[in-house]
Amino acid sequence: MKQIAILGSTGSIGCNTLRVVEAFKGEFGVAALGAGSNVEVLAEQIEQHRPRVVSTSDEASADQLRFELRQRNVIEPRIATGLDGLIEVATCDGAEIVIGAVVGALGLVPTYRALELGRRVALANKETLVVAGELMTVAAQQHGAEILPVDSEHNALHQCLRGVERHELKRLILTASGGPFRNAGKGEIENATPALALRHPTWRMGAKITIDSATMMNKGLEVIEARWLFGCSADEIDIVVHPQSVVHSMVELVDGSIIAQLGLTDMRHAIQYALTYPSRRPSQLPPLDLMALGRLEFFAPDTERFPCIRLAYNALRTGGTMPAVLNAANEVAVAAFLDEGIKFGDIPRLISAACDAHAPQAAESLDMVLAADAWARKWVNQKLESSIPAKRGLPV
Amino acid sequence: MKQIAILGSTGSIGCNTLRVVEAFKGEFGVAALGAGSNVEVLAEQIEQHRPRVVSTSDEASADQLRFELRQRNVIEPRIATGLDGLIEVATCDGAEIVIGAVVGALGLVPTYRALELGRRVALANKETLVVAGELMTVAAQQHGAEILPVDSEHNALHQCLRGVERHELKRLILTASGGPFRNAGKGEIENATPALALRHPTWRMGAKITIDSATMMNKGLEVIEARWLFGCSADEIDIVVHPQSVVHSMVELVDGSIIAQLGLTDMRHAIQYALTYPSRRPSQLPPLDLMALGRLEFFAPDTERFPCIRLAYNALRTGGTMPAVLNAANEVAVAAFLDEGIKFGDIPRLISAACDAHAPQAAESLDMVLAADAWARKWVNQKLESSIPAKRGLPV
Repeated sequence: MKQIAILGSTGSIGCNTLRVVEAFKGEFGVAALGAGSNVEVLAEQIEQHRPRVVSTSDEASADQLRFELRQRNVIEPRIATGLDGLIEVATCDGAEIVIGAVVGALGLVPTYRALELGRRVALANKETLVVAGELMTVAAQQHGAEILPVDSEHNALHQCLRGVERHELKRLILTASGGPFRNAGKGEIENATPALALRHPTWRMGAKITIDSATMMNKGLEVIEARWLFGCSADEIDIVVHPQSVVHSMVELVDGSIIAQLGLTDMRHAIQYALTYPSRRPSQLPPLDLMALGRLEFFAPDTERFPCIRLAYNALRTGGTMPAVLNAANEVAVAAFLDEGIKFGDIPRLISAACDAHAPQAAESLDMVLAADAWARKWVNQKLESSIPAKRGLPV
Repeated sequence: MKQIAILGSTGSIGCNTLRVVEAFKGEFGVAALGAGSNVEVLAEQIEQHRPRVVSTSDEASADQLRFELRQRNVIEPRIATGLDGLIEVATCDGAEIVIGAVVGALGLVPTYRALELGRRVALANKETLVVAGELMTVAAQQHGAEILPVDSEHNALHQCLRGVERHELKRLILTASGGPFRNAGKGEIENATPALALRHPTWRMGAKITIDSATMMNKGLEVIEARWLFGCSADEIDIVVHPQSVVHSMVELVDGSIIAQLGLTDMRHAIQYALTYPSRRPSQLPPLDLMALGRLEFFAPDTERFPCIRLAYNALRTGGTMPAVLNAANEVAVAAFLDEGIKFGDIPRLISAACDAHAPQAAESLDMVLAADAWARKWVNQKLESSIPAKRGLPV
């Protein structure tokens, strides 16, 4: 029985991972679960999967979890907290596969520790590679660890690239749904509310990722991630808007052939792929009905209406600590937007300003990229504090 | 320099093969060319590529070729004729790759001989595997030969299946343009003229194959071919109508993933793939422009309007000599249709009648399948002789 550890077990990827584990009863054991403060769901997961180690965001959540477990008469596993807790989960004894599915930069260090142990990391946390792509991929190489992408696009690319030599690859083509504002005008996008931005047309995901999809920063971050996963330059990675989200991504090979991966918009496919790789196992999910698709369309992305794409390419080309700044500024800006502190159109403006204000350095260590991350968060927060009254129409 | 031999050098696949050879100047040499009676084109090819052996349909064509070569001051290669000539081309000294691109059952024996020599056969001749799939694939295995499909659909399947284990494959999905009568009514199809049937919407091909595409027998034959190329049963091979011919075919894997190959409708891609396999080499052809595609559609095939599909599946399920009868009956019926001897709707009726009249036997040798082929040709021709006056409105 292969033991797995999940960083972010109560989120959408975490829950789906456990559903895949249940579908392969007896083949995967759950060694450790790392969550935030959703202790009710975590307690249920502990009751069902009996991990030896779990982690919550802080001591308060840990106490609530203890209460929940006693209510259920479930024997308490070791309960750790915070970043140290997530590291304990990622490095717990016996886990061969670590699912990296916490949202944001928090997944960075735990994921790095898992790679240092030579573990397979099934990575759903985009920020890990955006912020510290070089450090992560070098660590993986040094310690014989594998990084298997669990988001549908990179998982598709991974599938399309099986058996393809690097010199045979011409470019990666990431598909994008285009998000809820694909056909919206500039003014409409500028003033979009959180409620509108959270209405993703094809995928059901967490709030942060759904907003990233609406700004298309999601795709920008994926371009950076793809650069590290597949060793491509920015010029070798393209985005194509494909509203139906049926083609999950494509690769163009030097001989002109395009290999595409198609599937249902259900994360369990990519999760299962990462758990059972290199073998493919029968899925219990319904098959994709090609006849029911209607039609598949492909459009060029509009970087005028979705400037986050351009910002991400720029950060990738600059390199070093710049992608960390891009990512941190985006996280703070999206949170501010969800709190209704800023307009939708302010998200790219804030990120752009943060990148402009940053003097990029080489990303020599996790501490350096985390410092850049912290710098950007602070910078954007200060900017927000000084400008929010103005946004709300109050005198500055 | 890899030496190649081309069976059917003056046809559309043959000419495109030579264009690929020219694009890879210095990497491929042309050892032998087999053609029919198009001696002018053959003479040009000889002048440019200087093969050591060529073959024409008969002595009359051979003399015309000699005349053409003297006119051009080109040194005469060895000139053989007929089936023996094609066998000489397929088995000529030094040819590592044999392109099997003659139309119809004529390619059978030469292809078999090439496989017996352990040569790679780049196969564009559908009939070879339809008529003698088991014999061919067994010969290839015994002699360490490779069969690489050059028609776009099977070439796509070959690409999609790279790195896929047999137990990971759920089904093959052959795409079909649907031909010129995709949206035509039953009556319109029944009485279609050769001129209408030859108007293929997406591919430019020879007349026989274009009519097969209009009846969709093309796709039925491809189902049988796929059975042998990829070791699948009839139940594991599906057809999907895809009018844009951009997705050349797909495979569905057991985990629910669909891998598709997309490309331009230019045979040189598949030919190049077969020549350079297992490596992929840069193509000089323009890339596929995804943004310019508009949309891709997928429909279920209609076996009511296109009964040839059903006839082919039935023949495959019956097995033995039945696919040879299906194929031969189809060849004679298509020729009769092109001569305006029968109606378009008579094609499937004739094939169906021939299959019904045939007592299938195990396909134990090339001679047995060739006997079945000859039986079917004779049977259909007799049927035609007795019924054509009636078709023309004359008293029987």
